[in-house]
Amino acid sequence: MENVQIDHIGIAVRNLENATAFYKDILELHQIETEILEERKLKIAMIPIDETRIELLEPMEGEEAVSTFLKKRGEGIHHIAFSVTDLDRILKRVVEKGIRIIGKPSIGAGGKRVVFLHPKDVNGVLVELVEQPKTVEEG
Amino acid sequence: MENVQIDHIGIAVRNLENATAFYKDILELHQIETEILEERKLKIAMIPIDETRIELLEPMEGEEAVSTFLKKRGEGIHHIAFSVTDLDRILKRVVEKGIRIIGKPSIGAGGKRVVFLHPKDVNGVLVELVEQPKTVEEG
Repeated sequence: MENVQIDHIGIAVRNLENATAFYKDILELHQIETEILEERKLKIAMIPIDETRIELLEPMEGEEAVSTFLKKRGEGIHHIAFSVTDLDRILKRVVEKGIRIIGKPSIGAGGKRVVFLHPKDVNGVLVELVEQPKTVEEG
Repeated sequence: MENVQIDHIGIAVRNLENATAFYKDILELHQIETEILEERKLKIAMIPIDETRIELLEPMEGEEAVSTFLKKRGEGIHHIAFSVTDLDRILKRVVEKGIRIIGKPSIGAGGKRVVFLHPKDVNGVLVELVEQPKTVEEG
């Protein structure tokens, strides 16, 4: 049985600073960490909320995936990331069920393995699967 | 200080049964509760994930909000619901900051007070605020 959690909810925004205002001013969430993901050409802000996080994504010059989303649909919720304990086992089932994978598994933030599933095969939701590092207890 | 949590993530779907397949078959989440919200003309499926939930929304005959979303954008993530402890205090600040409220606070699922904020004022995200019932401890 997987220990599934919502790792984060990704939101595409044009300007990180403007976008954090709602979370600071209205929801009083001040523990916001910004980071530049050089390889993915993204500026991100991570906002912890209880056991999960909101991830705001601002594309930098030359970025494609989030930029295209912004051009087509404007700012808004971009993806949901579920964390799982055994990514390979899940991916086997993903393939069996005919759900398409976008690209291939890669190493994302925090050195974790991540993979994206095609939104057309998951009711319009861009799903990111994030593999949680195994802990000793799970042995 | 608010005790903010993500109450649920709402996803608009055309067919509830088809949409639950991903959560059952791939993520092995089998604790799914379906419900009919007569007043809102919605069939919903609630899928608990750790401390939060995915809410799948299928509009019934005559429903407007989710139906319009499906027509315009197709299936996909529809809203994020944040739970807060003092809705009136938050709403005061919402008004001060010029964020528009859609309709007015109403009683939603579980008898909780809910209000929706205009996505144009929250970076393209349709935000639902859900008031958690006060517990004795909070006194």
